Amino acid sequence: MHPLITLMTDFGTADGYVGEIKGVLLSQAPSATLVDITHDIAPQDVQHGRLTLARVWRHFPAGTVHLAVVDPGVGSTRSALAVESDGSAFVGPDNGVLSPALLVAGARAVSLPIPRGAAPTFHGRDVFAPAAAMLANGTPIEHLGSPAPLPIVLRTPEPERQSDGTLVGEIIAIDRFGNAITNLVPLREGVVEAGGASLHVATHYAAVERGESLAVVGSSGLIEIAVRDGSAAVRLGLRRGDRVALRARA
Amino acid sequence: MHPLITLMTDFGTADGYVGEIKGVLLSQAPSATLVDITHDIAPQDVQHGRLTLARVWRHFPAGTVHLAVVDPGVGSTRSALAVESDGSAFVGPDNGVLSPALLVAGARAVSLPIPRGAAPTFHGRDVFAPAAAMLANGTPIEHLGSPAPLPIVLRTPEPERQSDGTLVGEIIAIDRFGNAITNLVPLREGVVEAGGASLHVATHYAAVERGESLAVVGSSGLIEIAVRDGSAAVRLGLRRGDRVALRARA
Amino acid sequence: MHPLITLMTDFGTADGYVGEIKGVLLSQAPSATLVDITHDIAPQDVQHGRLTLARVWRHFPAGTVHLAVVDPGVGSTRSALAVESDGSAFVGPDNGVLSPALLVAGARAVSLPIPRGAAPTFHGRDVFAPAAAMLANGTPIEHLGSPAPLPIVLRTPEPERQSDGTLVGEIIAIDRFGNAITNLVPLREGVVEAGGASLHVATHYAAVERGESLAVVGSSGLIEIAVRDGSAAVRLGLRRGDRVALRARA
Repeated sequence: MHPLITLMTDFGTADGYVGEIKGVLLSQAPSATLVDITHDIAPQDVQHGRLTLARVWRHFPAGTVHLAVVDPGVGSTRSALAVESDGSAFVGPDNGVLSPALLVAGARAVSLPIPRGAAPTFHGRDVFAPAAAMLANGTPIEHLGSPAPLPIVLRTPEPERQSDGTLVGEIIAIDRFGNAITNLVPLREGVVEAGGASLHVATHYAAVERGESLAVVGSSGLIEIAVRDGSAAVRLGLRRGDRVALRARA
Repeated sequence: MHPLITLMTDFGTADGYVGEIKGVLLSQAPSATLVDITHDIAPQDVQHGRLTLARVWRHFPAGTVHLAVVDPGVGSTRSALAVESDGSAFVGPDNGVLSPALLVAGARAVSLPIPRGAAPTFHGRDVFAPAAAMLANGTPIEHLGSPAPLPIVLRTPEPERQSDGTLVGEIIAIDRFGNAITNLVPLREGVVEAGGASLHVATHYAAVERGESLAVVGSSGLIEIAVRDGSAAVRLGLRRGDRVALRARA
Repeated sequence: MHPLITLMTDFGTADGYVGEIKGVLLSQAPSATLVDITHDIAPQDVQHGRLTLARVWRHFPAGTVHLAVVDPGVGSTRSALAVESDGSAFVGPDNGVLSPALLVAGARAVSLPIPRGAAPTFHGRDVFAPAAAMLANGTPIEHLGSPAPLPIVLRTPEPERQSDGTLVGEIIAIDRFGNAITNLVPLREGVVEAGGASLHVATHYAAVERGESLAVVGSSGLIEIAVRDGSAAVRLGLRRGDRVALRARA
């Protein structure tokens, strides 16, 4: 009835590119409801887009169409994809940004044809938005293109287990608050080492004093490094890709 | 029919936290219309959130549900609130961010239970969004929790009147344009002193030449310090909390 | 039925001004669907607003109401406009921001009266939003005000043709990716000179190696200067207003 289309891009909003996409969507799927996820993905940062999509999409009702455009290869030979996965639909470039959908068993992907006249610098407007509108209008995905044989899938790296049981992982994202999100899942007992600090895993930020560092199990189930009422990234000098470890408590 | 839910947070949008909240809201209250107020409240700045909510909420129709999440104490023992005030509903942490609703005569507040399994770092998704969805679906507020005895209320400080009639106040906010909003209400005749400058209260920005400073009665009825086509904060070195005075004209 | 109202401002969202406007719109036009174009127009940058509106509005369905508020002269004697152009409606200040609508043959503009009590610093809330709501509710434009005789129209400057056929233009915008958008339209064969570089016009970004500069025909049909996976503005030191040239290939 009122299909949902979510939008996630690295376009910002000020240049009007997102406005163009919204106009195309509402012209071609007038009954759709648009939902902004974000337009502040770091420019051309496919990993950032992938992780944000991973966090978000399962909270939406089945049948939602997710438009995810972070597209450094626009206009080249990279494919354009539509994906159906666990009852939801996705459109975006074939560069890994749609990995969260593709990793689900039973996911189906099709390659979208590039319409004659599509701007080679703006498939968001000319390829992905029209495909999202068709999906929102109920067009079956197999009508949109031919099966895509080997879509690119990116995965968050798994931590490595050392001989003494220590898990060695990395920081996969820094959020707006300066929390450093790792790829470590919580052990029952352990100490997190990051940026030269050894941190116990607390249950919430206020378990330590203001300005102190802690580790905490974040809202997606991964260990995060945080500073109460402050920025762990600044305080501990943490950056994406930095090594972290979860060591069994002595 | 189509209840409105407004969203105000300090989450930014890029990390996907707001996307998660939107997914929960639209899954649990499918008929709701979401309205972004802002996700750019300065991180953990409860005062900023309170002032923005104060400015906005009365412009919305009765029955609107306002979700306001600026929550440095998330996961600690601070309460989670739902408030009914003058026909509108509010959800957010018990830290003062909901003061604009609580200050209204007849406001009712309930403490929301924290569901088992709620992420202790993300009540926005696991506590406040479900409560907002229930309110949007028409659930009476008293079904959401037990009466909250003493919610935290923050107020904008009142200016002090000196013996010579001068009102001494402060800058309560700097806006995007560099306008400095004070807690002073306009006298009929007077001179505003701020950042070393003495300024007459003009009726609009263009009452002075480009680049010149002025005081003006802003859109919420308070005196603002401004620079025509420029930033008063930069030009006069003004910051939140700085002292300002309104002196009767000699 | 469900009229669309788009919003484009330079207000940011954090101060709540946009929230106030949305509240007014949804109170006065409850059936309207709001669509954020952007609130990140550079403060008081009418040219930026004009170019963003130009890029966006024709992608929306006929009947859409476009609210465009970039308004350094708010409260002065500048007029407030409503415009009907090619089946769509527009409201905003009479400072050129609505030029894309006014330049269309047959466009009609009316001057909006300033209601008694309108805040002289915030016509977005007190003048433009109520007018947009009325248009969304189906009120004919001629009921909103009296014909506006000579609205201000701004145009993108035309490139100049030199005696040797070279077109000399300028950079009219820098986008979020650091692409420099010019006012040059593509010749069949030619070399673009910008920031000391001579660039061939490629069909898409990936036509050159990572980090290399190129010219490309952008999605609005104008030549852009870009760096693959990088920022042309940073790499070539380009700024709005800089001179560029399109020289016929020797």
